[in-house]
Amino acid sequence: MLITPGPLLAKIGSPDDIKKLDQAQLVQLCDELRHFIVDNVSVYGGHFGASLGVVELTVALHYVFNTPHDQLVWDVGHQAYGHKILTGRKEQFHTNRVYGGISGFPKRSENIYDTFGVGHSSTSVSAALGMAVASKYLNLPDKQHIAVIGDGAMTGGIAFEALNHAGVSDSNVLIILNDNCMSIDPNVGALKDYLTDITTSHTYNKLKDEVWNLLGKLSTFGKSAQDIVSKIETGIKSTLLSQSNLFESLNLRYFGPVDGHDVNHLVQVLNDLRDIKGPKILHCVTIKGKGYGPAEKGNATTWHAPGTFDKITGEIHKKVHDAPQAPKYQDVFGHTLVELAKQNDKIIGITPAMPSGSSMNIMMKEMPDRAFDVGIAEQHAVTFSAGLATQGLIPFCNIYSSFMQRAYDQVVHDVCIQNLPVNFCLDRAGFAGADGPTHHGAYDIAYFRCIPNIIVSAPMNEQELRNLMFTASLPRKERAFSIRYPRGQGVMPEWRTPFEEVEIGKGRKLRDGDEVAILTIGHIGNYAVEVCDRLAKQGVSVGHYDMRFVKPLDEALLHEIFAAYRKIVTVEDGCIQGGFGSAILEFMADHHYRAEVRRLGIPDRVVEHGEQIELHRECGFDADHMQKAVISLLEFAPKVI
Amino acid sequence: MLITPGPLLAKIGSPDDIKKLDQAQLVQLCDELRHFIVDNVSVYGGHFGASLGVVELTVALHYVFNTPHDQLVWDVGHQAYGHKILTGRKEQFHTNRVYGGISGFPKRSENIYDTFGVGHSSTSVSAALGMAVASKYLNLPDKQHIAVIGDGAMTGGIAFEALNHAGVSDSNVLIILNDNCMSIDPNVGALKDYLTDITTSHTYNKLKDEVWNLLGKLSTFGKSAQDIVSKIETGIKSTLLSQSNLFESLNLRYFGPVDGHDVNHLVQVLNDLRDIKGPKILHCVTIKGKGYGPAEKGNATTWHAPGTFDKITGEIHKKVHDAPQAPKYQDVFGHTLVELAKQNDKIIGITPAMPSGSSMNIMMKEMPDRAFDVGIAEQHAVTFSAGLATQGLIPFCNIYSSFMQRAYDQVVHDVCIQNLPVNFCLDRAGFAGADGPTHHGAYDIAYFRCIPNIIVSAPMNEQELRNLMFTASLPRKERAFSIRYPRGQGVMPEWRTPFEEVEIGKGRKLRDGDEVAILTIGHIGNYAVEVCDRLAKQGVSVGHYDMRFVKPLDEALLHEIFAAYRKIVTVEDGCIQGGFGSAILEFMADHHYRAEVRRLGIPDRVVEHGEQIELHRECGFDADHMQKAVISLLEFAPKVI
Repeated sequence: MLITPGPLLAKIGSPDDIKKLDQAQLVQLCDELRHFIVDNVSVYGGHFGASLGVVELTVALHYVFNTPHDQLVWDVGHQAYGHKILTGRKEQFHTNRVYGGISGFPKRSENIYDTFGVGHSSTSVSAALGMAVASKYLNLPDKQHIAVIGDGAMTGGIAFEALNHAGVSDSNVLIILNDNCMSIDPNVGALKDYLTDITTSHTYNKLKDEVWNLLGKLSTFGKSAQDIVSKIETGIKSTLLSQSNLFESLNLRYFGPVDGHDVNHLVQVLNDLRDIKGPKILHCVTIKGKGYGPAEKGNATTWHAPGTFDKITGEIHKKVHDAPQAPKYQDVFGHTLVELAKQNDKIIGITPAMPSGSSMNIMMKEMPDRAFDVGIAEQHAVTFSAGLATQGLIPFCNIYSSFMQRAYDQVVHDVCIQNLPVNFCLDRAGFAGADGPTHHGAYDIAYFRCIPNIIVSAPMNEQELRNLMFTASLPRKERAFSIRYPRGQGVMPEWRTPFEEVEIGKGRKLRDGDEVAILTIGHIGNYAVEVCDRLAKQGVSVGHYDMRFVKPLDEALLHEIFAAYRKIVTVEDGCIQGGFGSAILEFMADHHYRAEVRRLGIPDRVVEHGEQIELHRECGFDADHMQKAVISLLEFAPKVI
Repeated sequence: MLITPGPLLAKIGSPDDIKKLDQAQLVQLCDELRHFIVDNVSVYGGHFGASLGVVELTVALHYVFNTPHDQLVWDVGHQAYGHKILTGRKEQFHTNRVYGGISGFPKRSENIYDTFGVGHSSTSVSAALGMAVASKYLNLPDKQHIAVIGDGAMTGGIAFEALNHAGVSDSNVLIILNDNCMSIDPNVGALKDYLTDITTSHTYNKLKDEVWNLLGKLSTFGKSAQDIVSKIETGIKSTLLSQSNLFESLNLRYFGPVDGHDVNHLVQVLNDLRDIKGPKILHCVTIKGKGYGPAEKGNATTWHAPGTFDKITGEIHKKVHDAPQAPKYQDVFGHTLVELAKQNDKIIGITPAMPSGSSMNIMMKEMPDRAFDVGIAEQHAVTFSAGLATQGLIPFCNIYSSFMQRAYDQVVHDVCIQNLPVNFCLDRAGFAGADGPTHHGAYDIAYFRCIPNIIVSAPMNEQELRNLMFTASLPRKERAFSIRYPRGQGVMPEWRTPFEEVEIGKGRKLRDGDEVAILTIGHIGNYAVEVCDRLAKQGVSVGHYDMRFVKPLDEALLHEIFAAYRKIVTVEDGCIQGGFGSAILEFMADHHYRAEVRRLGIPDRVVEHGEQIELHRECGFDADHMQKAVISLLEFAPKVI
């Protein structure tokens, strides 16, 4: 389907073309850009609300600043669709998030206007500050460096670390706080309340002015009153006001709040700010989904990334299926956690800003005193969970695999070294799909299995997930318990199975074979079932073991396997360096076995975005490639024995 | 040497005994506690300044609060010596930081008063908040939860994440901000300036009172003046003041600043705060090294952990050596970086709050515009470095191996996925020694080698470190470059060797052998040299290869090795799960070799503190054990071939 840009937008090949417009035309350009986004996302899907919210800001930034010489860094990047469309990617925009197409996030290798790749939140101030400090050192005093960061992202610890440095850096960095009161879910925490306070209840600046006016009036009461007023003014100025704003406390000049949807006013403000040296922050109030009625008025979380929809009615398209479908692992997690929590009042749920994505929202709704969204704050989420565990509670801390990278030290230092029984559910393990490399959960098996005092597991299906969660919920004096599962559907339409305890470190033999055994971990093992079935029809009998645990390994089962098979294929939806297959090699070496082992998994390079199946195929561990690996191994005759 | 506590301190077996004292006796107890710390540290070494700074706070906290029912969490833990001495560890205190002795940090398994293990900074608010939320849920409304956190630690991102949550938590958490303007080195950043502002220049509270008084005087000017004054007061109260403090902005009730060395006043304040529900912060101003003249007046960084010293003169004992000594790797790094930076104006140095520990202070002194201490902010340090790299600069970001865990996502997401040429120097790789498990750099080989686009290397000696740094400083379009080295001395007294480029991914053959080859990575390889020498004297010829790079592996050299040897020992000062030895096993499996491989390294458990050599011995990879491993491998005849 061909999507036609409006007449002004059609002429914008790069931001240089925006600069050729009269300022009076910017409103129309914004309008056309917004329509173009709506047209595209309604047909092709993608992130939505965030980009609509910054249409005016995007146009104003490229109009005022000399991009790409001036460095514009988008935090997270969900909101950068307008930026992409204005920077030469209008024609490719329908390939957004498609295998082989453009990325859904800013990406340095894609475009010169994408100064810093993003996906995870809260990095923009650090990156822009690095650029600004570099420009200062390189004697480029007029070069501008702008970080656009949401109020949700501002709660992430690294953003605060960067503010603390920016405030003393004397460098040319402009932080635009895009305040829409949302992460993907509604933003939470004290900072949000504070920003709302500034923005609403008599705005801060207005009141400041009023106090000044009133003090002026008092000075008409004569000389001695004037003296007193003067003292008060000096006092307020020198101390109270210089400390009267969180950002000014950190030595950042604070401007705003301004209306983020008034493009002309934004142009004026940005022009002014360009000439003010040093670190500064512009508080910009926007509405997620702005300009598209159903999104603006509806549920902002739903409209964060609604999938495809009817742009006229605002009806979100739902897939219709003939047969009952297997549920998403996310839903199994969410419902199972509530089931368990009803039976066990020690269970507490924790999510860092992913209530809807992880389905923790089910527990948050049913048991609001027992499930916590702590904001974009993975580090805090883990150590907070450790604190809960010290008091005898049973935390289930749900963090996406790629986001868990951000809490790695907390897992090592606060949980595992102390040997505390904290449960981690790692959502989005393996390929995240259309979100691409920043979101792929590729490394967790490797980065967790090297730590002591942690159980590392992955369920092959819904029942296994439920049983692993049940097992993790049973009283346990020590050891973290990690359960990883992928984004998306499982394989069991009838998934509400009764709970059964799983013996920790115990794998499952699914099928006997002759020469070759396939050892799998997690959901990806379902491909192996298919491969074994296919080969069985060809008269080839292949063994299949779902190992369930990467740590501790089922050593008894492995002894059985290595005694019976001389050829082994390991399969994991994770990096092959240091991962599950590597753990099997370690076992083999430590116990003096000599088998021919092929490890399938994510190769040692950045894998781009695409459907999960497309990426499995690309990386050689979909069912077809797995079958080929088995066949080739069957045919393999080692030269050296 | 027997160190005798003063008469009051002698009777304190636990905090219950403190509570039996008259408040009037607390000053004396503080005095005796301070002397006991001075006596011990001067003789046995350890951390010093921090504990002296909180003597009064420690006594007051245990006097007022019902520990261990009330939960007291020390951030970092350098300052907890007084706490340890008062909680039943007076008699063991001389074993502090000694192999088999008590830990230098609070540690749950050591003592019931140690509610949360620490070592890394900035975790205390998250942990205490977890405890407080648990107590609320468990219906223990009177239970208190206290985090004692320094102004340095407060800059770490996780602390801000926790404040953001605490402010909306309605839970019983008291945060004591121990403001001494120091990390190990002087604290940096905007927050420090802000806290100093509050504390000094007419204190915040005093000025607030003055303004109020002045407004009161104005109201004597008659009715209309009174009206105006009333409006101003309302305005100031409702908006300016409620936003007038960084912590109050985050909805934490702010108290202070108070003098942290007035134990009686502290007792009174803490008594008051105990009865105020909800999240609150007490700003407590202290002096690092308080009460010991040389430390109080001298260089606070030196007196952070001075080693042993003469307590009368304050002279720090220095080891006297007959022969020239090999330098510390830290000093080689610090001086070499300056040498390189003089030749190459693109080089920039970055440290997160470890200028003296890493020796980055040498460059900071010589080139203050090119070397940055960004505060306790590992995450920001890495992404800031990535920002610098995008502008063509060559960052050398020095982070201790165990602290790098805290910036793991930034290495993956901001550096490696973007394939940016950032250089990481990982100090304190391997066993940290007396600091113990929180500081051991055990996991970095495993957690780095699973990431794409990174070079993972380790020098075996000073010359190698210099050459690797030189190589990392050469223009390079892509890939991160990590260089790990241990705490402490190298092996080359004459270490200022000329720079030579190292071919990336190229190992070194150090010695040919017959049956067995030892493959080592990094400094630990020096043990292997010794082992080979010893065995050579016994007529046993063992090969030795210093692989230099874990990633990329020197595949050509490995083909040579596996063609020549059927028995291999790998040695690394890192975890054996997923580490260097595991990389060798992967190579072997991928290339169909069949050798008997023994992997020596850090085992899969928490290794406690001790001298490095003691820990190497305990873990079986000192020279003696390495030799045994070689002999046993020589004697090994595999059952299965």
